[in-house]
Amino acid sequence: MFLIKSLQQSSLADIRDKIADKTKPIGALGQLEKVAEQLALIQSNEPQQSGQKIVINKPTAFVFAGDHGIAAQNVSIAPSDVTRQMVLNFLQGGAAINCFCQSNNIDFYVVDAGIKVALSDEEKTNAAYLIEKRLGAGTADITLAAAMTEAQVKQGLCFGKEVALSAVEQGSNLLMFGEMGIANTSAASAIFMALSGLSAEQCVGQGTGITEQQLMAKRILLTKAVKRASQAVEEFTPENILAQLGGFEIVQITGAILAAAEAGISILIDGFIVTSAALIAVEMHPEVREYLIFAHQSNENAHQLMLEQLNAKPLLNLDLRLGEGTGAALAFPLLRCAVSFYNDMASFDSAGVMV
Amino acid sequence: MFLIKSLQQSSLADIRDKIADKTKPIGALGQLEKVAEQLALIQSNEPQQSGQKIVINKPTAFVFAGDHGIAAQNVSIAPSDVTRQMVLNFLQGGAAINCFCQSNNIDFYVVDAGIKVALSDEEKTNAAYLIEKRLGAGTADITLAAAMTEAQVKQGLCFGKEVALSAVEQGSNLLMFGEMGIANTSAASAIFMALSGLSAEQCVGQGTGITEQQLMAKRILLTKAVKRASQAVEEFTPENILAQLGGFEIVQITGAILAAAEAGISILIDGFIVTSAALIAVEMHPEVREYLIFAHQSNENAHQLMLEQLNAKPLLNLDLRLGEGTGAALAFPLLRCAVSFYNDMASFDSAGVMV
Repeated sequence: MFLIKSLQQSSLADIRDKIADKTKPIGALGQLEKVAEQLALIQSNEPQQSGQKIVINKPTAFVFAGDHGIAAQNVSIAPSDVTRQMVLNFLQGGAAINCFCQSNNIDFYVVDAGIKVALSDEEKTNAAYLIEKRLGAGTADITLAAAMTEAQVKQGLCFGKEVALSAVEQGSNLLMFGEMGIANTSAASAIFMALSGLSAEQCVGQGTGITEQQLMAKRILLTKAVKRASQAVEEFTPENILAQLGGFEIVQITGAILAAAEAGISILIDGFIVTSAALIAVEMHPEVREYLIFAHQSNENAHQLMLEQLNAKPLLNLDLRLGEGTGAALAFPLLRCAVSFYNDMASFDSAGVMV
Repeated sequence: MFLIKSLQQSSLADIRDKIADKTKPIGALGQLEKVAEQLALIQSNEPQQSGQKIVINKPTAFVFAGDHGIAAQNVSIAPSDVTRQMVLNFLQGGAAINCFCQSNNIDFYVVDAGIKVALSDEEKTNAAYLIEKRLGAGTADITLAAAMTEAQVKQGLCFGKEVALSAVEQGSNLLMFGEMGIANTSAASAIFMALSGLSAEQCVGQGTGITEQQLMAKRILLTKAVKRASQAVEEFTPENILAQLGGFEIVQITGAILAAAEAGISILIDGFIVTSAALIAVEMHPEVREYLIFAHQSNENAHQLMLEQLNAKPLLNLDLRLGEGTGAALAFPLLRCAVSFYNDMASFDSAGVMV
């Protein structure tokens, strides 16, 4: 379903030489140099873009929203209704992600991937920013049943691909994804447990801020959910993990990540939930990893473990625990700066600096 | 010489309420909330600016350049000549700080605080970006003599004040400072040793990348310098530490920090060398600390110790070791985003979200 090319390493030496020749001590721009190298390498893979300069066109954020059956079990600080309320807030421009996208000149869209109650026509203000890709009215409670069918997983991967390609067709070559879905840290934790074999103690955290008591209950519930899932399948595969334990937004983000990598463009990965989708995408197609830049280290403990599995060091660590793609939007100016120094900084020769 | 007001705490409760009422879980924006709170508090201290919104006007970066006598002792990867070459590079727009200021819409100026050889008239291209505040042709070698006279320290604090006020008069209410000066990590380390009483092992690092052997020699030299300085004065004061061990750029940055705090505006602090100036400024006037936002954690080990003394947690940690104010310029978009969420994000009431 997805054909993803590993990055050609043939231009890597040239890219490194170019960075090393900038008027600064070797390596003095730290992680920013790694980002510039990766962006340049991704871009040089596309023959038509193999110029000397990195270009970021129409950076675009998609926030995928979906509801989760397990929310009924008090695993979050808020009820499922809040997912829908926040979708309306996104459309009205009132959420944190709206502010950060506006501040950093990032195009912004909301995807209804399957919230409980679809928006009415009257509610579709700013409909230009709304993309409807509903897989259903929220997932089933994963402690009791599969979140969704395998057919829904397939459909969700397709929907995610359509969303990503809609931006690629508009000329975007850098995508970032966010999510909104009450209880979706539960789905992300369950996915990580199934993928890694780690325990609920290691994989389950306080999300946006539940109590210690809720946390203990959440761990018991997710242990139950993963056990149920493991008994429902012969062995875990990325696809059946998504069906058993995923969320509509997580499935679509997985599809969007795969499609963006297939299109050969750069992907800025947000926090815990988006990283769970990235883990699944990399499990399906390991080459995807080469297209991923990691924006921030979430306050959720298990995120660090996920990042280690992906051999990723994120750009920011600001104690964020909001989701919505806020970490990605906040990190994005660092990518612009990486591009700027790569493209425009003088070389030792050109500046007459003699270190 | 400087009159610095402690921030009034009377509006703090209102500011916190406003942040708590935004459509997100309490505290979910982590460090960004602290930044918004501090910016709002600084601004509310000025009666004429006590509106509900935070405003950042004309953010401005000044890079102060100066040469250091101790550079002759092989404590850096580069010779003193490079200070001057980099000043020319700044004026031609070719350095990393130029790229980041341009990318993030920050006004930019270079201050010649006392490089070895002043620029010739022909070299003053883009003279509009050059500010000449020369305290001399580089400092004395601090292992052998005081870096400068106490009169030069006074003059340097004045020069720094004039530089900061030039931006304030243009309407700027957020300043950041950078530095260029081969061997100035030696001066910053020596200042920190004298202020803290810590050893060279704790305070002296590899700067932009000297060898292990150079590092050992640098530690011996700086132990000697601080011992010489301690014998030259009755007891250490911020002023005589600057005279004995400082640098022309460090003195002027200290003055600029003090003047910006006196003017009641926000100050974004860069890495190791600028933090040494901030330490001195806070030692002189503890109220200054309330105006300081810390941009990044430098790769220089002792920077962490300095930050602990200032009770500061910086926004970025990207393994930078370049100076020039690059950390501050890279962190600046996070301040814009903090302002954006503080000003424009919906409240629970206004958005109809019911957490």
